[in-house]
Amino acid sequence: MNWINELKKRLPEGQVTDNPTVLEHHSKDESYHTPRLPDVVVFPRCREDVVEVVRFAGEREIPVVPFGIGSSLEGHVIPERGGISIDFQEMNQVLEVRPEDFLVRVQPGVTRTQLNKELKKYGLFFPVDPGADATLGGMAATNASGTTSVRYGVTRDQVRDLEVVLADGRVIHTGGASAKSSSGYHLTGLFVGSEGTLGIFTELTLRVYGIPEGILAARATFPSVHNAVQTAVSVLSAGIPVARMELVDARSIRQLNQFSQTDYPEAPTLFFEFHGNPEGLQKDAAFTRELAEAEGSRGFLFETDSKARATLWEARHNLAYAFIHGTPGKKQMATDVCVPLSRLAESVENARRLIDDSSLDGGIVGHIGDGNFHALLMLDPSNPQEVAEADRIHANLVEHALNCGGTCTGEHGVGIGKKKYQAREHGPAYEVMKEIKQLLDPKGILNPGKIV
Amino acid sequence: MNWINELKKRLPEGQVTDNPTVLEHHSKDESYHTPRLPDVVVFPRCREDVVEVVRFAGEREIPVVPFGIGSSLEGHVIPERGGISIDFQEMNQVLEVRPEDFLVRVQPGVTRTQLNKELKKYGLFFPVDPGADATLGGMAATNASGTTSVRYGVTRDQVRDLEVVLADGRVIHTGGASAKSSSGYHLTGLFVGSEGTLGIFTELTLRVYGIPEGILAARATFPSVHNAVQTAVSVLSAGIPVARMELVDARSIRQLNQFSQTDYPEAPTLFFEFHGNPEGLQKDAAFTRELAEAEGSRGFLFETDSKARATLWEARHNLAYAFIHGTPGKKQMATDVCVPLSRLAESVENARRLIDDSSLDGGIVGHIGDGNFHALLMLDPSNPQEVAEADRIHANLVEHALNCGGTCTGEHGVGIGKKKYQAREHGPAYEVMKEIKQLLDPKGILNPGKIV
Repeated sequence: MNWINELKKRLPEGQVTDNPTVLEHHSKDESYHTPRLPDVVVFPRCREDVVEVVRFAGEREIPVVPFGIGSSLEGHVIPERGGISIDFQEMNQVLEVRPEDFLVRVQPGVTRTQLNKELKKYGLFFPVDPGADATLGGMAATNASGTTSVRYGVTRDQVRDLEVVLADGRVIHTGGASAKSSSGYHLTGLFVGSEGTLGIFTELTLRVYGIPEGILAARATFPSVHNAVQTAVSVLSAGIPVARMELVDARSIRQLNQFSQTDYPEAPTLFFEFHGNPEGLQKDAAFTRELAEAEGSRGFLFETDSKARATLWEARHNLAYAFIHGTPGKKQMATDVCVPLSRLAESVENARRLIDDSSLDGGIVGHIGDGNFHALLMLDPSNPQEVAEADRIHANLVEHALNCGGTCTGEHGVGIGKKKYQAREHGPAYEVMKEIKQLLDPKGILNPGKIV
Repeated sequence: MNWINELKKRLPEGQVTDNPTVLEHHSKDESYHTPRLPDVVVFPRCREDVVEVVRFAGEREIPVVPFGIGSSLEGHVIPERGGISIDFQEMNQVLEVRPEDFLVRVQPGVTRTQLNKELKKYGLFFPVDPGADATLGGMAATNASGTTSVRYGVTRDQVRDLEVVLADGRVIHTGGASAKSSSGYHLTGLFVGSEGTLGIFTELTLRVYGIPEGILAARATFPSVHNAVQTAVSVLSAGIPVARMELVDARSIRQLNQFSQTDYPEAPTLFFEFHGNPEGLQKDAAFTRELAEAEGSRGFLFETDSKARATLWEARHNLAYAFIHGTPGKKQMATDVCVPLSRLAESVENARRLIDDSSLDGGIVGHIGDGNFHALLMLDPSNPQEVAEADRIHANLVEHALNCGGTCTGEHGVGIGKKKYQAREHGPAYEVMKEIKQLLDPKGILNPGKIV
């Protein structure tokens, strides 16, 4: 294509490539969605490079798709209509750490573990933990969350300011450096979670936190998922500031024991983490234990040493991989509904029943304090019957969640996979979303085919 | 006017009035801004009434201005171009309390103390406390915050869903009942803080919290504002989950002692509140005391009994009134800048110097954990010299805040008074805000003259 040579002239040597291996790497994410090659991949080194690419794309109405490390789970980075994949791996600088302001300024290609390594020097940390070592640009684009959001909130809650390149090449800052503001419209919140469809992030200012004085981990097994969920509700009702509270169902514990060489009892389990001062921690954990035992918990174990604690959370984080590695030839479809707490037990039980009644294998894990859980369904994407079965389960879970006032995606985002549920979930508000997309990207060049 | 009689026919008897006393009540808020009468006031009883009024206004291009209880501080509810004031006092029902979901569904005319009275029956509370007994619709419209936001966040953080009547009469829901979502664009965040300029709220779903097991209040006096601010930074750095942390300067303490019959030492003071389990509280407070004493605090006093605690926070809340009542014939201009913590001490000291060097009297109070502070300037609105002097101080504080990366308004909102700073604060993003306003309200009927 002629325009690729044009583009190569517009950016410094080596920043634009149509090498087939590189194109292939940018054709997919970690999901089961069908890959699609971009026409070209660019590696910007600064905001001006991004402006140049977006202006170029706008002139020719070529799609542009931002790419972090490709850990998205709904096909967000797949260039469904070809075009330019913008890979941010060379914009990976932590630009500024401001300990007294609890702020950090980063480029979008910085990953969260890279950031936390840097922050540790200052006694600070960035709390959002989606499991994967995603880039912060990607996490903001999907409004990622994960195990710690019950205490610290989701990515949107951490973003103070975004530098955004708009579809017409304008550059805006959506916020500022102050902890709060009632000035103007809240564009930061609008751009976070917009999945590259409204603008492209070139810089993020994020809130960070002091590393807590003490950390305590624990796990508890329960007679049923229902008891585990009730315990979670009791913990939140009591105002215990739990930092993580994860549900892992019996099937998933079995997979985890196989993969991680742990020997946790194969029963519905809650994994907890508490952050705070040592006296408060002990009290919080003891109170949590009481609440768990009132719900029939047969074992409440503290992981006191940091090694056991690391093992526990590593095991939890590796669960999705445990299923993938344990089921050769299969891919994973992760559902991601989020429901009000009062409907969580029945939602999880419904999911378990649907999996058991199908020919598919799969486990259930949940960020239970938020009402968010994943059914991890193993399937062969080339087997139409398995795909149809997974789709049916997925659709059922979404319909159930929406009937509860919940959402089709708690944290993975819409991408390709959840687009079909948007009209049902948002009703007339979906029209407003489309109008905003049309306003900000009239030519439809920004990650077309996603969300709207 | 003929259209008023038309409007009277469109709504049930008694819901539309042009009684002069009622018009006068809806011509102003608690600010120093010049009142302006609406042409008519309507009292909707349900969503359909609001839709009817907005449709009617759209057909005739008549301004509509939502009105809660009129406690706004920047002229938000003043009908600058006349038209229809929509008073929500008859839409004041707590529709549903969902203790297990930590959610409540309310009509926009419910006030926060009314809500907290209802929630107390369930062991729950709504944490945002702007001082005034504002309506929840008004608090969402301005993204109000206040003394507790350092722990619980601002109003935007509590809103899960808004039912909004758009300028063309469409009704949308911006969110849902789940604790988090990555589905679609975050319209909830966009509408919160939009001050009635993008749509009119007819229902809110809000996050609520378990009443903490224990509450402890304390106060500490300091040699200087600088020491008080440094203590606040240390408390946050240490990760102490302080629930309130308020700076009151020496001049304000004097005013407060006169008005509230307290005898607090006339020095820069921090008021603290801690929420949690009793063991953790004691540890948090003791640690805070250490940090305060390291900054030269000469007195750290616990208000152990609930009466002393109530007195302390009542005194703090009444401070704005203490100045108003103590300065007959004057009105108050409250500045509202918010800056990064590292710039807070110099910002407060700059404000104090500006007041001392002027002919005006005034105090400084701050939600110091958020970097947000108010200079409460007393002035005679009919005296042009005093108004000019207050404007000059205000402009200086805003310019200083913006140079620090802060905002012209941390919590009061833009309204009339902060509009002149919007372009300077938001730069090219202000154009995007105007485009969104144009998209959602092409005829400009929704609270015209505010924000954009």
